[in-house]
Amino acid sequence: MKKTLFIIALVASMAVSASAQQNTSFRPSNVQSPTVNADGTVTFKVEAPKAKEVLVKGDWEANDGMGKFTKGKDGVWTYTTPVLPSEMYTYRFSIDGVVSIDPTNPFSCRDVGNVFSVFYVDGGVADYYQVHKVPHGTVSTTWYHSNASNLDRRLTIYTPPYYEQSNKNYPVLYLLHGSGGDETAWLDLGRVARSMDNLIAEGKAKPMIIVMPNGVGSTEAAAGETSDNLDFRPVMTNFIADSYKTGKFELAFPEIVNFVDSRYKTIPEKSSRAVAGLSLGGLHSLFITANYPDLFDYVGLFSAGVDFTGVDLTLPAYADLEAKLAAQAKAGVKYYWIACGTADRLYPFNKDLAKTMDAAGLKYVWHDSARGHLWCNWRQYFVEFTPKLFN
Amino acid sequence: MKKTLFIIALVASMAVSASAQQNTSFRPSNVQSPTVNADGTVTFKVEAPKAKEVLVKGDWEANDGMGKFTKGKDGVWTYTTPVLPSEMYTYRFSIDGVVSIDPTNPFSCRDVGNVFSVFYVDGGVADYYQVHKVPHGTVSTTWYHSNASNLDRRLTIYTPPYYEQSNKNYPVLYLLHGSGGDETAWLDLGRVARSMDNLIAEGKAKPMIIVMPNGVGSTEAAAGETSDNLDFRPVMTNFIADSYKTGKFELAFPEIVNFVDSRYKTIPEKSSRAVAGLSLGGLHSLFITANYPDLFDYVGLFSAGVDFTGVDLTLPAYADLEAKLAAQAKAGVKYYWIACGTADRLYPFNKDLAKTMDAAGLKYVWHDSARGHLWCNWRQYFVEFTPKLFN
Repeated sequence: MKKTLFIIALVASMAVSASAQQNTSFRPSNVQSPTVNADGTVTFKVEAPKAKEVLVKGDWEANDGMGKFTKGKDGVWTYTTPVLPSEMYTYRFSIDGVVSIDPTNPFSCRDVGNVFSVFYVDGGVADYYQVHKVPHGTVSTTWYHSNASNLDRRLTIYTPPYYEQSNKNYPVLYLLHGSGGDETAWLDLGRVARSMDNLIAEGKAKPMIIVMPNGVGSTEAAAGETSDNLDFRPVMTNFIADSYKTGKFELAFPEIVNFVDSRYKTIPEKSSRAVAGLSLGGLHSLFITANYPDLFDYVGLFSAGVDFTGVDLTLPAYADLEAKLAAQAKAGVKYYWIACGTADRLYPFNKDLAKTMDAAGLKYVWHDSARGHLWCNWRQYFVEFTPKLFN
Repeated sequence: MKKTLFIIALVASMAVSASAQQNTSFRPSNVQSPTVNADGTVTFKVEAPKAKEVLVKGDWEANDGMGKFTKGKDGVWTYTTPVLPSEMYTYRFSIDGVVSIDPTNPFSCRDVGNVFSVFYVDGGVADYYQVHKVPHGTVSTTWYHSNASNLDRRLTIYTPPYYEQSNKNYPVLYLLHGSGGDETAWLDLGRVARSMDNLIAEGKAKPMIIVMPNGVGSTEAAAGETSDNLDFRPVMTNFIADSYKTGKFELAFPEIVNFVDSRYKTIPEKSSRAVAGLSLGGLHSLFITANYPDLFDYVGLFSAGVDFTGVDLTLPAYADLEAKLAAQAKAGVKYYWIACGTADRLYPFNKDLAKTMDAAGLKYVWHDSARGHLWCNWRQYFVEFTPKLFN
């Protein structure tokens, strides 16, 4: 009897109907989670009357993003964070050890192999990551043919407001994701389209095209978007097995530049091209620009993966870095930015790279930030870096 | 002590590290869920040693999509479905009454107010919903200005393979979502870009532009993509409060057609325009084409919401339907398709509409399908309807 009642309650909660209606169901109105409070604290709730323990783990700094819920008499568990600085945050709950999204938060995104719930604390940098009533650019996913890998490969492209109506040509920022990421990462987790709309509206950044390729040269696209379909699961093991540190992606990069210059209204000149990337994408940016010193005038390394783990420094793309950097210095670079969080494991390796650049005579601007290898840093670097471009 | 160990286990499972690394974490390798088996059954697994009961609810027909898991000695719960026909399926787990996605499936999508996990059973119609090594179109999100609502409003646009390189002009299908949906629904849940890539590659459908507007004329975009940001939550109550059955969206529809004709390489003629929509979008398609009989030669009503619930039939857009349909018949329609599932609550209302059309002398093709008000039907209607267009 008890079991029957439970099944009935479940069926009701899932809004299954006898008329065979899509089980979209309505979220329960009595629980809303999260609530961003006026003081910058955030309250999470979850209805879990049978649970023994509920925890949250998010990517904020206070308490290392951990929190332990308290159970109410109504079976609703509640936890309120300390005051959080303005940012976009991702988090998951652990309910009796099962780790998943906040069941009543409809806003989520995938980061590498997991789905996270999302919220924003406004009133600071996160305002850039939000939609405002400003002119909006267009975001496209499109495909180019790579002769290097003999694959059609997917790109995400941002074109600025008025691009379609205008007769102007635009500079291009190539923006590269990290290990385990893909061509969707900078858009979904980096909030690039919104930040660029807002920076342009404020007059802080020049209208530009932003090209976000997939940095794993031997694959077509993000997991779930390739001809492997759901057999290609976004776990790091997919990438470890893959030959993504062969230097082939870096050496084939002019294919992407040529495609973009042929397809879009670009200014096809060094002075109107930038490359930046986070983590693995920082390593890519370093070697793409070092190998092609005549293609790019702007470089951004964001928490770059320059520990050279798994990198064979005798391969053509990676050999003779100091000499290549010296040649790049000679060819000229308008702005070279190296940013890293002081708590990042990669911080000392970036400092070592800076020494190599000093030895090569390549000038760069160094930027320290707080915290570690985190999307909050990469979103903020994007907002800080793009106003320096194409001036 | 036990609690301390639990916290340690949680921290390990969430891959929090002392070096402040994004908590992407790796999914546990010992549990993979779901597994689509060779015989068309599907096995779900979830590691939940402390749980008392685990259930699944999906949108398949067998057992009304319900299943009850069995607990293994290792704390991993397992359930295998009956054989499922080829389709895309969405589902959630209930773990001791908490309803959420499958924690180890990285593939999810939002349908109205909830996030669901996703899988495909291949070997039939679902092959259309998958990525294959065929030429791919481009998918864009862009914004048009609506004078009717004085808002910038977001559209999803599919342009076919070779559109950018070609000097040709293309016909346009306007494709409308249902109540609670938005401009992302046909792409994410309807798998429109993939189906169209595959239909074109097979020579079954003409290359066409597909325009997916947001059918709630008084809002800018999907929940989370408007200037309300996360305050605009995708629950049905948002829509019930909204004036989406005022006929304003339908009457303002030429704004969208004019925008598309000015922005894209269209054939700006009645013979090269189609409108189709599901549920509320079917109601919209009916009234858009009835009010503008000179604009569209092709109409598709998919499980159309023609019960006229909440529709004031004295409003300009909705008044005198039979007379408008008679005028539409006189103006000419090349292909008018009405499709509905026999188990759909709306089936008899669509039959009533057919009688009105008979009285008005408007010819249509009727299509019965199995099951009810479900995305499986709408995806399949898209695959059946689009080959009829622009011949």
